[in-house]
Amino acid sequence: MNYSDEDILKLRKEPYVDLGFAKVDTHRRLRQGVSEVIYGAGKTKEQILEIANTLVKSGDETILITRINEDTKDYVVHGLNIEHVLYDIQSGACVLGELPKTSGHGTIVVATGGTSDIPVAEEAAITAMALGNDVKRLYDVGVAGIHRLFHYLDDLMTASVIIAVAGMEGALASVIGGLVSCPVIAVPTSVGYGANFQGLSALLSMLNSCASGVSVVNIDNGFGAGYQASLINHV
Amino acid sequence: MNYSDEDILKLRKEPYVDLGFAKVDTHRRLRQGVSEVIYGAGKTKEQILEIANTLVKSGDETILITRINEDTKDYVVHGLNIEHVLYDIQSGACVLGELPKTSGHGTIVVATGGTSDIPVAEEAAITAMALGNDVKRLYDVGVAGIHRLFHYLDDLMTASVIIAVAGMEGALASVIGGLVSCPVIAVPTSVGYGANFQGLSALLSMLNSCASGVSVVNIDNGFGAGYQASLINHV
Amino acid sequence: MNYSDEDILKLRKEPYVDLGFAKVDTHRRLRQGVSEVIYGAGKTKEQILEIANTLVKSGDETILITRINEDTKDYVVHGLNIEHVLYDIQSGACVLGELPKTSGHGTIVVATGGTSDIPVAEEAAITAMALGNDVKRLYDVGVAGIHRLFHYLDDLMTASVIIAVAGMEGALASVIGGLVSCPVIAVPTSVGYGANFQGLSALLSMLNSCASGVSVVNIDNGFGAGYQASLINHV
Amino acid sequence: MNYSDEDILKLRKEPYVDLGFAKVDTHRRLRQGVSEVIYGAGKTKEQILEIANTLVKSGDETILITRINEDTKDYVVHGLNIEHVLYDIQSGACVLGELPKTSGHGTIVVATGGTSDIPVAEEAAITAMALGNDVKRLYDVGVAGIHRLFHYLDDLMTASVIIAVAGMEGALASVIGGLVSCPVIAVPTSVGYGANFQGLSALLSMLNSCASGVSVVNIDNGFGAGYQASLINHV
Amino acid sequence: MNYSDEDILKLRKEPYVDLGFAKVDTHRRLRQGVSEVIYGAGKTKEQILEIANTLVKSGDETILITRINEDTKDYVVHGLNIEHVLYDIQSGACVLGELPKTSGHGTIVVATGGTSDIPVAEEAAITAMALGNDVKRLYDVGVAGIHRLFHYLDDLMTASVIIAVAGMEGALASVIGGLVSCPVIAVPTSVGYGANFQGLSALLSMLNSCASGVSVVNIDNGFGAGYQASLINHV
Amino acid sequence: MNYSDEDILKLRKEPYVDLGFAKVDTHRRLRQGVSEVIYGAGKTKEQILEIANTLVKSGDETILITRINEDTKDYVVHGLNIEHVLYDIQSGACVLGELPKTSGHGTIVVATGGTSDIPVAEEAAITAMALGNDVKRLYDVGVAGIHRLFHYLDDLMTASVIIAVAGMEGALASVIGGLVSCPVIAVPTSVGYGANFQGLSALLSMLNSCASGVSVVNIDNGFGAGYQASLINHV
Amino acid sequence: MNYSDEDILKLRKEPYVDLGFAKVDTHRRLRQGVSEVIYGAGKTKEQILEIANTLVKSGDETILITRINEDTKDYVVHGLNIEHVLYDIQSGACVLGELPKTSGHGTIVVATGGTSDIPVAEEAAITAMALGNDVKRLYDVGVAGIHRLFHYLDDLMTASVIIAVAGMEGALASVIGGLVSCPVIAVPTSVGYGANFQGLSALLSMLNSCASGVSVVNIDNGFGAGYQASLINHV
Amino acid sequence: MNYSDEDILKLRKEPYVDLGFAKVDTHRRLRQGVSEVIYGAGKTKEQILEIANTLVKSGDETILITRINEDTKDYVVHGLNIEHVLYDIQSGACVLGELPKTSGHGTIVVATGGTSDIPVAEEAAITAMALGNDVKRLYDVGVAGIHRLFHYLDDLMTASVIIAVAGMEGALASVIGGLVSCPVIAVPTSVGYGANFQGLSALLSMLNSCASGVSVVNIDNGFGAGYQASLINHV
Repeated sequence: MNYSDEDILKLRKEPYVDLGFAKVDTHRRLRQGVSEVIYGAGKTKEQILEIANTLVKSGDETILITRINEDTKDYVVHGLNIEHVLYDIQSGACVLGELPKTSGHGTIVVATGGTSDIPVAEEAAITAMALGNDVKRLYDVGVAGIHRLFHYLDDLMTASVIIAVAGMEGALASVIGGLVSCPVIAVPTSVGYGANFQGLSALLSMLNSCASGVSVVNIDNGFGAGYQASLINHV
Repeated sequence: MNYSDEDILKLRKEPYVDLGFAKVDTHRRLRQGVSEVIYGAGKTKEQILEIANTLVKSGDETILITRINEDTKDYVVHGLNIEHVLYDIQSGACVLGELPKTSGHGTIVVATGGTSDIPVAEEAAITAMALGNDVKRLYDVGVAGIHRLFHYLDDLMTASVIIAVAGMEGALASVIGGLVSCPVIAVPTSVGYGANFQGLSALLSMLNSCASGVSVVNIDNGFGAGYQASLINHV
Repeated sequence: MNYSDEDILKLRKEPYVDLGFAKVDTHRRLRQGVSEVIYGAGKTKEQILEIANTLVKSGDETILITRINEDTKDYVVHGLNIEHVLYDIQSGACVLGELPKTSGHGTIVVATGGTSDIPVAEEAAITAMALGNDVKRLYDVGVAGIHRLFHYLDDLMTASVIIAVAGMEGALASVIGGLVSCPVIAVPTSVGYGANFQGLSALLSMLNSCASGVSVVNIDNGFGAGYQASLINHV
Repeated sequence: MNYSDEDILKLRKEPYVDLGFAKVDTHRRLRQGVSEVIYGAGKTKEQILEIANTLVKSGDETILITRINEDTKDYVVHGLNIEHVLYDIQSGACVLGELPKTSGHGTIVVATGGTSDIPVAEEAAITAMALGNDVKRLYDVGVAGIHRLFHYLDDLMTASVIIAVAGMEGALASVIGGLVSCPVIAVPTSVGYGANFQGLSALLSMLNSCASGVSVVNIDNGFGAGYQASLINHV
Repeated sequence: MNYSDEDILKLRKEPYVDLGFAKVDTHRRLRQGVSEVIYGAGKTKEQILEIANTLVKSGDETILITRINEDTKDYVVHGLNIEHVLYDIQSGACVLGELPKTSGHGTIVVATGGTSDIPVAEEAAITAMALGNDVKRLYDVGVAGIHRLFHYLDDLMTASVIIAVAGMEGALASVIGGLVSCPVIAVPTSVGYGANFQGLSALLSMLNSCASGVSVVNIDNGFGAGYQASLINHV
Repeated sequence: MNYSDEDILKLRKEPYVDLGFAKVDTHRRLRQGVSEVIYGAGKTKEQILEIANTLVKSGDETILITRINEDTKDYVVHGLNIEHVLYDIQSGACVLGELPKTSGHGTIVVATGGTSDIPVAEEAAITAMALGNDVKRLYDVGVAGIHRLFHYLDDLMTASVIIAVAGMEGALASVIGGLVSCPVIAVPTSVGYGANFQGLSALLSMLNSCASGVSVVNIDNGFGAGYQASLINHV
Repeated sequence: MNYSDEDILKLRKEPYVDLGFAKVDTHRRLRQGVSEVIYGAGKTKEQILEIANTLVKSGDETILITRINEDTKDYVVHGLNIEHVLYDIQSGACVLGELPKTSGHGTIVVATGGTSDIPVAEEAAITAMALGNDVKRLYDVGVAGIHRLFHYLDDLMTASVIIAVAGMEGALASVIGGLVSCPVIAVPTSVGYGANFQGLSALLSMLNSCASGVSVVNIDNGFGAGYQASLINHV
Repeated sequence: MNYSDEDILKLRKEPYVDLGFAKVDTHRRLRQGVSEVIYGAGKTKEQILEIANTLVKSGDETILITRINEDTKDYVVHGLNIEHVLYDIQSGACVLGELPKTSGHGTIVVATGGTSDIPVAEEAAITAMALGNDVKRLYDVGVAGIHRLFHYLDDLMTASVIIAVAGMEGALASVIGGLVSCPVIAVPTSVGYGANFQGLSALLSMLNSCASGVSVVNIDNGFGAGYQASLINHV
């Protein structure tokens, strides 16, 4: 991809559809290779349907919406009259349209420290699937019983990217980072209480990982991790 | 790469050289594909020389040492009697031995918001070079004069990974993240004063980036960004 | 305006109406050129009506009340028997009486990073309108798709003051601040999650802006930004 | 001022001079009406001289450099062979070349709470003077002896903009903000100790001011306040 | 009052009544001159009645209970079959039994910055009344309209202790502290939003007051301020 | 206990039962001497029953579940058809099966500063009982009336471990730590308000205890304290 | 004392001496009964001498200067040619002129937790002495060996005010507050390390004291405590 | 040990030696079984010698002093004319007199994550040795190369207490806690930079450990961990 001076002018001329409350970036698939994702939190179901409709009209075949409840999902699915729907009730992640064929260098492994981290992990996994990646889930493999993690050494060693999702002290990212030779995207979760401070402990832990090859996204940001992992898997 | 049960036993038997004050992980190049890097801060020059010597004896041809001053560099270079040395006095990053030939998918771009961010950027750039990557530097292209950044749109659009290094409000990472389709590794720096709180403002900014495809490493952690970028460039 | 010793004595003698629960500053329009604004949050509808009544009796023709719900708005409108009412349900901002004619040096532009920042922006816009300013809204022009912002370069370059409203990493303020030559009032919003810490990330970001000419008000303080912008527009 | 499509192309073509370590924005005076200011902290005297030289060559007649020590000042003055120099040793602010004639709507008042706040205030005052404003200083008028402030009510009431500089609890900004009808730019300083947390107490205080018409810049950011005040005074 | 060795033994032998869930300090009136106060938050109405009953039986004639709702108040009043009751619904402060005659050096003034600070101020005022003090209330006299405060200079100058209750930037404590020659007890309140951080801004402000003679209690701790003021008024 | 190479292989082969949403560590009783405890918060009653069932089938005779409400307790008790149940409604701690006979060096004392700290203390006490310890409770003995604590000097001096549970300023841990010669486990609670910051004040207090022999667990972590105390009592 | 309207005019007319860098409040002794105290930190010795001179000329017989080193003390003593000097090298507190005769209700007790808290305690004690109070020092009586404190129960029980100075966990203030019936002024110190965070732990501890009758001043603010204690002792 | 009423009286009569600047707790060995430890930081060498002398005279045969430099050590050793001295220059820990014979249940293992954590670990190890414990050191076994830790599984599994010392993300404590069945005392260190915030990341990590049986002491508090471990080893 390459920007000429003409591109800039074009960029300035027609890059989005103005809905009043939102300027939908229909140009993004061309510019960044991925169409705009609808972040559902804080939007009404009417707004979400209208944005999704705009994306469908601009030619998107697979639409990812994150953090919507079941009622909103039903409203949008009905409104678009769409056949293929993938919806995870824990995370609120939703894919409208068929999943793309898997592409990329290899498999993205999504691992969690505990059971309560699963909703964040599912947001990451579904995002990666919606962007055309092969995904393997390893849930509840935290360091309190490290033998559970070692059971999956083969999966870890052969992944192209690993997403490590953990709350509390977030040690999972460092332990995995010390074992593997692929990039690790760490997702701190707000799982915990007290001096966890809504995910701060896991966040600081992961930022200070003694293992090389670990980078971090925002607390509970499963979507960001899945998106970044997909970019890496398609470099 | 694949771990059999025998691997674990082997792992337990001879993976490191014990120097008393340090257990040098000479096995790391086999396990993770990259030899151990010497983090110089807080180590004496004698300790650094001894660790470097251990790595040389175990067969490493290129040794990366970060955060050492010129005196320590001279002491180690003299002690090892090494010919090829790359040393950046601003960051204290040092490569002993010849740089490996560049490999990987493409170019790693290292961009900074301002002049004061350059030492952190150099640590990232030299790390990436020591790990066999083609590196391009774009310094002082922060958003206070955004036309300077747009001048390099072609470099940004064709990179395989971008490392965005910025202090103060750290907006550079978001602006770049919104323009490109490759992974962006954001490095907050401690450049600034007052409500910057030693890099906290840039760190929080980057973690909350509205652009997808951005992940973050620790404040001033140029090494971590260069290492992660290299892993991505070699996926 | 000028304070003589007699002014001080007068100041001490009759500057407010004491309602028991509040001392209404009916003197403010004389002293500061703007009548007292009723901050609705945490007051009962009876209290708000009583204060509004006091202002009406003291001669105010336009009364601004912020952060009230629809029920309170109806109660006050009914109680005052007022004809002209402007009410925005998202922000809870309400203007009783006719809007003053626009005055001041030029146009105040109110820009937001995303859709969720609109309620804060509306509080700013309505405040500025109630104080007699010409206001132009540019919503959802955040840096994740920076071409949307550039589409409005003409509006930005010709504004007399710009209010930049953004949550998450708040980069919008820096990018606008780097482009224009008028004062920019930045309003961090609490939009976001995780390491956003209820608006702290945007607040620190904006305080550390690398662009000159940016000053900041409290998180979600649309009213404060609109008020300050109006003062500037009328200097 | 107005951006045409041709402007953007021009913007992309020659907007700065590349010095390697810095990209000097020689285009800024055209774009923003004010030439680039050299932030001296963290730059060598050689770098500062080279940047200043570039600005002189591009036609700037008055150059503002902030936060440099006397030695650097002498080095730069000697290197440029400049006649008119204004230098304040407390703040390190320096103006090379003649001060421009005062312009703008009126007077900018710079007030401080205590004696220790004066260096920050001087940075603000000198910045405003370098940008062509009439400046009046009111130092050591903090609320611990509020009669000292009232002594200057006339100066406060007739200012076009007021810069309120205070450390500790920063109450000065609120008290002034409650008295006047012009915009107040509040500058928290790091003056204080203990629970002051390097200026945090004054910063939070000023952001939460109960007075309308107060906006805030970074801790100790006298330059930012002076710059913003000048923009306001020239709206 | 004086502790002999025998006192210690006595202290060890019968200083409280054990209710299982609480050890009621019936000895406190003897030891500290004030009977135990019942902090109602987090206790059931049955527990509160049982503790109050124990205090009544041990001879207390006036019982102060803080932070209870109306239902609990009715339950306890009914259960104790008590005639004289003072209850403030805003703060939840309740006095059972007749108020003691006022004693002490002079008047305790309770001042608030705004209307929303009144519940905290009432807790302070009622506490001081329950401990036998003459109390004068000055509400809504914050620095945004400082003339309202000056109206009451005589009350302030003749107080024996002043309790200054304020949220937001808490400047009221400093301004009063700079005017008077009696001790000022500052009570930060959680009134405000955004960078107020639930009262942190007012707390830090008051701790860093540039005025001498100001000490501080916990956020929203009206009881603590009233209690301390009473001790001072009875020194 | 001793790990041979064969142990590691065994560790890797069958250490847990995979329930999909959880990997139950049925091996833990062998490895750590204590069977897995079910942390109830954030799990459905169906999940808890399934995990408990797995533990029963693997041979556990006493099962500890923390933080479940009464409804969940009834559901699990019914589902397992278990006879002996200990349930504390305040803390939500539940023991299924008979309590083990007390073992260990001596008595574990659980002390609280106030009445509101009791739920956390009960979680600690029940955990210690479920792990076979003799437990003595000393509730509401905080330093505001220190004679209540001295009444129990004999119990404190003869304990083998003491768990000190306190909110607000958490001074109880330091006072006890200065009196006794056994290990003290301090549990900060979130009891308090304002500058307590949800337990932060007690946490920092306890970490900075001037008394030796005090270590600390997470805010409100009664379970962690009871578990650690039991390990110590069985060293 | 009483403010008439004429007082305000007088207040406005001649309340201070303007030294350029400072406005010395020579009127303070009249207004507040105590002459202005010179806070030495951050002032040059020349400035301090000039301010002291102004106070001497305005008739002050006892001058308190805090936080000056020995060199400055000598310079000022020499410059004023003063005979009576009290100087404490640990705290830097200095009294020029004879100490006033002790007045007030009784004795002010200054107690410290440890040896390292003594400098802060001396600042408090010397301030109180300079303001005419009888002072008794109880140093190193912290709760790690609580019997040392009980040795002085008589001194504590008979004080009119107690200043409790402590770092680390600051429990001393609560323990004393629970024992006595006079006001306690708590001074957190920055003594400690790690999670002490420069005095934050002691500060939060003291603000959350479970004992009534405790108020708090800034970290290390011995002066503020001594001043407030003197006001209380003279109510 | 048991406190009778007579004990309390005795406690009040002669429990310490008053040196003016310190009250040496010579009674502590009787009361707590361990003599007072001299915390050297912030004390002069003369003060330390005088305290040590007092302890020698009261019969202590082994004296532990922490955090003194070599010069102070020499001064004290010379002043006391003591023969047996153990001094570690990294941590500043010093034992005067012969080490006691080892006692207690078993071995205390001291493990560190990296080389830079060794000074804190040595403070812990020497403290434990001075209190009569058998100590085994495992240094540089952090999770970045977890095979180094597994090499010592036998040492870990047979310890009676483990002290886990780590900076950065502090994951070592959780990994060890998940493997062993003895109590783990976690010591966060200030080793790291950036978002480590002087040890905060490791501290929060350890407090939120997902492994049971882990309690925590202050950042860098090797002494506290060694002391607590000794108490546990002697329960």
